[in-house]
Amino acid sequence: MDAMTRIERSLSAALGLAQTADGPPLLAAAMRYAVFPGGARIRPRLCMAVARACAEDKPTLSAGVAASIEILHCASLVHDDLPCFDDAATRRGRPSVHKAFGERIAVLTGDALIVLAMQALARASETAPTRLGPLILVVARAVGAPNGIIAGQAWECEPKISLAKYQQAKTGALFAAATAAGACAAGHDAGAWHLLGERIGEAYQIADDIRDVVSNEHELGKPTGRDLALDRPNAVNRMGLGVAVERLEDLVRSAIEAIPKCPGAHDLRAHILAEASRLLPRELARPAA
Amino acid sequence: MDAMTRIERSLSAALGLAQTADGPPLLAAAMRYAVFPGGARIRPRLCMAVARACAEDKPTLSAGVAASIEILHCASLVHDDLPCFDDAATRRGRPSVHKAFGERIAVLTGDALIVLAMQALARASETAPTRLGPLILVVARAVGAPNGIIAGQAWECEPKISLAKYQQAKTGALFAAATAAGACAAGHDAGAWHLLGERIGEAYQIADDIRDVVSNEHELGKPTGRDLALDRPNAVNRMGLGVAVERLEDLVRSAIEAIPKCPGAHDLRAHILAEASRLLPRELARPAA
Repeated sequence: MDAMTRIERSLSAALGLAQTADGPPLLAAAMRYAVFPGGARIRPRLCMAVARACAEDKPTLSAGVAASIEILHCASLVHDDLPCFDDAATRRGRPSVHKAFGERIAVLTGDALIVLAMQALARASETAPTRLGPLILVVARAVGAPNGIIAGQAWECEPKISLAKYQQAKTGALFAAATAAGACAAGHDAGAWHLLGERIGEAYQIADDIRDVVSNEHELGKPTGRDLALDRPNAVNRMGLGVAVERLEDLVRSAIEAIPKCPGAHDLRAHILAEASRLLPRELARPAA
Repeated sequence: MDAMTRIERSLSAALGLAQTADGPPLLAAAMRYAVFPGGARIRPRLCMAVARACAEDKPTLSAGVAASIEILHCASLVHDDLPCFDDAATRRGRPSVHKAFGERIAVLTGDALIVLAMQALARASETAPTRLGPLILVVARAVGAPNGIIAGQAWECEPKISLAKYQQAKTGALFAAATAAGACAAGHDAGAWHLLGERIGEAYQIADDIRDVVSNEHELGKPTGRDLALDRPNAVNRMGLGVAVERLEDLVRSAIEAIPKCPGAHDLRAHILAEASRLLPRELARPAA
């Protein structure tokens, strides 16, 4: 079974934990709407690629961990889109959760998805219970305060932003968790795997900045030019398109160099290069080094 | 060290995980503000009382579990108070989190506290790693969808509310987690302990309804008469004060009967009766049966 199919099945199984006939129907529908159909599932595919590179011995656990990371990503999108933050009307080419279900259900959907992600980790770890603690800690660090996604969003509320900390927390942290948790799911030590994820996250952040400036709304599935409109930091607006594309290519190279020693390093390298080639809008893409 | 001191110390230690000099300061301050100074800490004290009744062998774990439950309770209050829900200006006698820190930080504070609670469970379980999975599952069930606090809040967004499910999810579920997780922290099976917490939660819900009608704002530390103003179900408005007080007394008796066999059942009974005597406004309190 290919990685994408395993991820979608694992996501379905996780969502199933939250959805029974006796729960409130709108919340259940909104949780499903926030997760399906997904985007490129970049983080869970990276997580699974690392687990495979570490010779995964518990495939159900790897897929469960990957699903948890994607669920946390979806939760962050739902809350980022809220009226008090980005006030985004669309996401993935259709109404955002608060536009489709109302603001109250959107707040609760984000909350419930965070809880579900942790529950899915606990379920997936039942055959390897000693891996659960390290997994929860890796994931919580990537999501909570002081350095995870939520902290990244909180930097937007500060009078003075540290751009590096903001981007590392807002984007880098969950990529770092994807690689670290992938290793952890395969029984490897998480520590050596953070750097790879951080560099991929940085590359992804720059690619996202480039798409925000260069793409059109139809291609991207969400409004473009938002960074300029909302006065948010954007690498292209800061350093120009040419320099931003070079920086992206540098980061992909340094990510490859950061792959720790592992049985499947060769395939992991190929996975990262293939992903990198999809990061840029078609008209800017060049063969990766 | 008494239970209250252990809980406050454990809460402090947990909050410390989220607060370093390099994180966003407003979020850190708001998380602390949401947790300290606390209310009566009813749920964590119940959790610790159950752990003691089960002859706790890991006191740091019991205290960590109790703190996690309180942190989740605080998270739910922050989100319940948001403008899109109760729009409450005060909580525990001072400005609510969104009034003090703004709506955006309030959303993120609730999110970060949910993550922190799970992280604190993982840290506290390091000396008993096989208990972590069951603890996460007990806690996630009490907080998430389809039957936890978040689902309870989501029932408020439905055109038709099932009152029993609403109250069980909104209030009963976290009390049930307090007793079940307390047992679990002491290495006992959680299953037998849910009923006790559910009944205490039901008693607490009725006591809360009574206080909403009978108390004044100064005594309660939050606005009163809110249920009538917001058209929310309230036992006193539905069945009258006398019947509500009788129902509360019945529930306390049936809670006592639901205590599973355990080494410290006698002390646990005393704890529950002492707590129950504090549930009603002074002018209504009668010695418990």
